[in-house]
Amino acid sequence: MAKVRIDQKILIANEEYANSNREFLARKRMPCLNVISSPGSGKTTILARTIELLKGKMRIGVIEGDIQTDIDAQRIRTTGAPAVQINTDGACHLSAAQISSAFHKLPVDKLDLIIIENVGNLVCPSAFDLGETAKIAVLSVPEGDDKPEKYPALFTRAAAVLINKIDLLGLADFNIEKAKADILKLNKETKIFPISAKTGHGLQQWGQWLTEFVQKTKIA
Amino acid sequence: MAKVRIDQKILIANEEYANSNREFLARKRMPCLNVISSPGSGKTTILARTIELLKGKMRIGVIEGDIQTDIDAQRIRTTGAPAVQINTDGACHLSAAQISSAFHKLPVDKLDLIIIENVGNLVCPSAFDLGETAKIAVLSVPEGDDKPEKYPALFTRAAAVLINKIDLLGLADFNIEKAKADILKLNKETKIFPISAKTGHGLQQWGQWLTEFVQKTKIA
Repeated sequence: MAKVRIDQKILIANEEYANSNREFLARKRMPCLNVISSPGSGKTTILARTIELLKGKMRIGVIEGDIQTDIDAQRIRTTGAPAVQINTDGACHLSAAQISSAFHKLPVDKLDLIIIENVGNLVCPSAFDLGETAKIAVLSVPEGDDKPEKYPALFTRAAAVLINKIDLLGLADFNIEKAKADILKLNKETKIFPISAKTGHGLQQWGQWLTEFVQKTKIA
Repeated sequence: MAKVRIDQKILIANEEYANSNREFLARKRMPCLNVISSPGSGKTTILARTIELLKGKMRIGVIEGDIQTDIDAQRIRTTGAPAVQINTDGACHLSAAQISSAFHKLPVDKLDLIIIENVGNLVCPSAFDLGETAKIAVLSVPEGDDKPEKYPALFTRAAAVLINKIDLLGLADFNIEKAKADILKLNKETKIFPISAKTGHGLQQWGQWLTEFVQKTKIA
């Protein structure tokens, strides 16, 4: 059982940084989302479209987590939003310590919301608390409707689930009613948004939820 | 740097089991593939189609790795092939110890090839040697053509890369020539097969490679 003990040590060290991040965010009254999904489910495209949708209404700063490359931070910067890139050098998730240092590279006092895009991985990131206000899960249609059932940890913890690439419904084996039912079975509090970051479908409703989420955190 | 030391301990313990698996496979002259990809890239569908394609020519046994559920092993068994399910209970990759015990649940002396389907995860499984003869990477078109560049570890180590769901080319942002070039930049020895497990496109070429791979291992 050595492995379990070791993992717990890492988790405890992470939790100390997560608590300090939570205190920082509370002091600043700053909402912060931790966006988690498989590789290629469309996280970066969703973020870029969300930033454009809310331009002039909400100032969003982004922390991009990737194993290597800064492709995603570059894409976000083309929207005009500030983006900090973290390279994990092989690690499969972001840690709270990395987020703590990234906070200090963002112009936090000029922002209404911080969004963290975690490393593309449906498993590990959900186990590592970053001190975020809420987790957002993204599931894309081509991945298949069995993913909530097979990878429950993330969906159990997500405040909202974006079902992306619904423009590919009918071209993939994806029963959206089954996916929704399986997600709600794991977490009846979560809010589900079927969207297409490509066509823009469903982004208004997601933007509305986000606006209310930010307002609630600001006045809490 | 405690984390690095701890990870190395886990990797060393894993390597002992991996070496013993390698000896077992060598003694049996049994080829064994470790198939790795993101969740939902189509691993199980590819395996089921491959088993059907080679029915009567090659006897394939499967080890299915999943965090929970036995959905995938059930799907494989409908093809008539023996399948052993391993549930990792939250862990993000299969370990060599789990594979060692799964070998003994398969009718190894009646098989020509063992295929391991790892947990859906583009990061962690590639770091854990299972003692397999070769690693196979699957990348699906909807995941995007930037994945080899962003998640290089797997592609660097794969004997073959299946680019699946090519029936969705044109519907996703995926430049197949860029993907191929990026994969070959990481690993010029790897063999790339554009396929669609759904339509059957490219499966003949993949089946041919597999047949030659098994023959080479048997006579080595």
